[in-house]
Amino acid sequence: MTTIGITMGCPAGIGPEIILRYFEQHSWDHPCKPVVLGDLAVLEKCRSELDFTVALTPWQPNNPLPDSTLPVIQLSSLSADSVQWGKPTRITADAMAAYIKKGVEYVQQGCLDGITTCPISKAALNSAGYTFPGHTEMLAHLTETEDYAMMMAGNKLRVTLVTIHCPLSEVPAAMSTQRILRLIRMTHSALKVDFDIKNPRIAVAGLNPHGGENQLFGSEEYQAISPAVSLGSDEGIDVSGPYPPDTVFFKAARGDYDAVVCMYHDQGLIPFKLLHFNDGVNVTLGLPIVRTSVDHGTAYDIAGKGLASPDSLSEAVKLAAEISRNRKKHSARKDKRNG
Amino acid sequence: MTTIGITMGCPAGIGPEIILRYFEQHSWDHPCKPVVLGDLAVLEKCRSELDFTVALTPWQPNNPLPDSTLPVIQLSSLSADSVQWGKPTRITADAMAAYIKKGVEYVQQGCLDGITTCPISKAALNSAGYTFPGHTEMLAHLTETEDYAMMMAGNKLRVTLVTIHCPLSEVPAAMSTQRILRLIRMTHSALKVDFDIKNPRIAVAGLNPHGGENQLFGSEEYQAISPAVSLGSDEGIDVSGPYPPDTVFFKAARGDYDAVVCMYHDQGLIPFKLLHFNDGVNVTLGLPIVRTSVDHGTAYDIAGKGLASPDSLSEAVKLAAEISRNRKKHSARKDKRNG
Repeated sequence: MTTIGITMGCPAGIGPEIILRYFEQHSWDHPCKPVVLGDLAVLEKCRSELDFTVALTPWQPNNPLPDSTLPVIQLSSLSADSVQWGKPTRITADAMAAYIKKGVEYVQQGCLDGITTCPISKAALNSAGYTFPGHTEMLAHLTETEDYAMMMAGNKLRVTLVTIHCPLSEVPAAMSTQRILRLIRMTHSALKVDFDIKNPRIAVAGLNPHGGENQLFGSEEYQAISPAVSLGSDEGIDVSGPYPPDTVFFKAARGDYDAVVCMYHDQGLIPFKLLHFNDGVNVTLGLPIVRTSVDHGTAYDIAGKGLASPDSLSEAVKLAAEISRNRKKHSARKDKRNG
Repeated sequence: MTTIGITMGCPAGIGPEIILRYFEQHSWDHPCKPVVLGDLAVLEKCRSELDFTVALTPWQPNNPLPDSTLPVIQLSSLSADSVQWGKPTRITADAMAAYIKKGVEYVQQGCLDGITTCPISKAALNSAGYTFPGHTEMLAHLTETEDYAMMMAGNKLRVTLVTIHCPLSEVPAAMSTQRILRLIRMTHSALKVDFDIKNPRIAVAGLNPHGGENQLFGSEEYQAISPAVSLGSDEGIDVSGPYPPDTVFFKAARGDYDAVVCMYHDQGLIPFKLLHFNDGVNVTLGLPIVRTSVDHGTAYDIAGKGLASPDSLSEAVKLAAEISRNRKKHSARKDKRNG
């Protein structure tokens, strides 16, 4: 049995309700059991306000998992009254940070096989004294990881991003062969190990219209991207490009490639969200622990209203379990080869 | 009956075969009849090599249209031997330019209701002495139009582009309020008249990740895009934004907006081609004549092989006919109001 810990995210966001809806909709006939790292009182408040029927059971790692109730590792003691939907406070921020820290610890101790994180508010995180730009950076710090990257994964498309929260005007200068090559390698390794694809095919998108059209519309393809593709290819990676950005995603989505390495945020996220608006999963590559995340924010505007879709959470937990099993399989193969 | 002229495009490209396949697949029970501006010998050559069964009839404007054969306005006299698929020459380039010039003339004279253009090669166009960056610029010149723009239209998504063949590094500096406002106006007018949408809803995409996130990731939204949206809105246009680029296309495709005004080539074409890879239509806004175009190039690599899809041509002719009817309807309404 693969056990994935779901961190509840911001208690005032949509985390509690998507967790409850996900549990209620799910049949649990698959080989993964999720447990929640969160707060029983907040989940109970959400359950009663939105008429969910699933029962909650306090649980501690290394104990047997309950059959049909939702196991909750109680990591904060928020009173139902102290949490108002859509209104994060210093207290909810502290709780939110505790779920993440404890989640990492439990995975490192082997009590959980991986974590799936519900959305946090970066402002709240900072107010709790964790001065990270975001969730992923905090996880990298907690696991002492320097080299990590984000992949957005869905059943039609997987994309990785060379630059993320970078103004468009600063993207061209950020195109360096080493940076792109590093992401080609991480994408390749994730496809091979985490996704268990024997010979992954990677497409690299260009930066400019038509991929620069022989430097007529920009030279970053010539200066930085093509050299990175060549170096990756020399290392034995099945990587090709740079391709005209306006057609490579159609080709990847129809099955020509297993992932597209993208140069900037919207180049990857426009096609990804068009195909996977509700069921996209954010996977952190490079971490020593398995971590997937829902592909949306705290959605304070609709929190507590019962409107949020649990599809991304459902896919994220499923993928975390898959990655965990694939990593174990690969490390067993490696041990066999070495032993 | 609406009569749309299809210019054959480069005789050595896929124009001839997509025209023949389109005619062969079509039942002609709709209120539009297409005629070809091209070359009988080249079409006959294509017909016999690829085993098309549709018969060709030489035709002149103002004559009755044949019932079940393909009417061809013979505008060049290329011999079958002189045209090799995939190999444009100076002779084919001259012919290609003649189809476009004559097409514009016939529409201006009222013999045709609009034109749909098959792909040309820009290099060939230049070699024939027409030093335009492309098809659209030549049409603008021929119709003495200064203010024109490109719209990509499909049944799920319509996009217009503030910048087109511009290196990504030059896009941020090209963001000016006047330029964006001008495109908002042209998009609005096209949706209202050409697409006959009573109250068109226009979304404007931001430039930066998350639409700049309050200038954290770039300030073009604040400096140029938001002011353009406000000015457009002040003029009574239902325009909103700037929206985060990674979600606005999903929302437009599900029906929230009638068009998205995009800041750069791939911002609009990545989502458009993902949804309309085969059936997208390029519409030139602002021309006094109706002009649509297929959404692909000459495809010299597959010309003459019978592999090219006629879907974009079929949609482009249908849309040209629709736009022509809508423009007539609107001008009749206007006359009625004024008379």
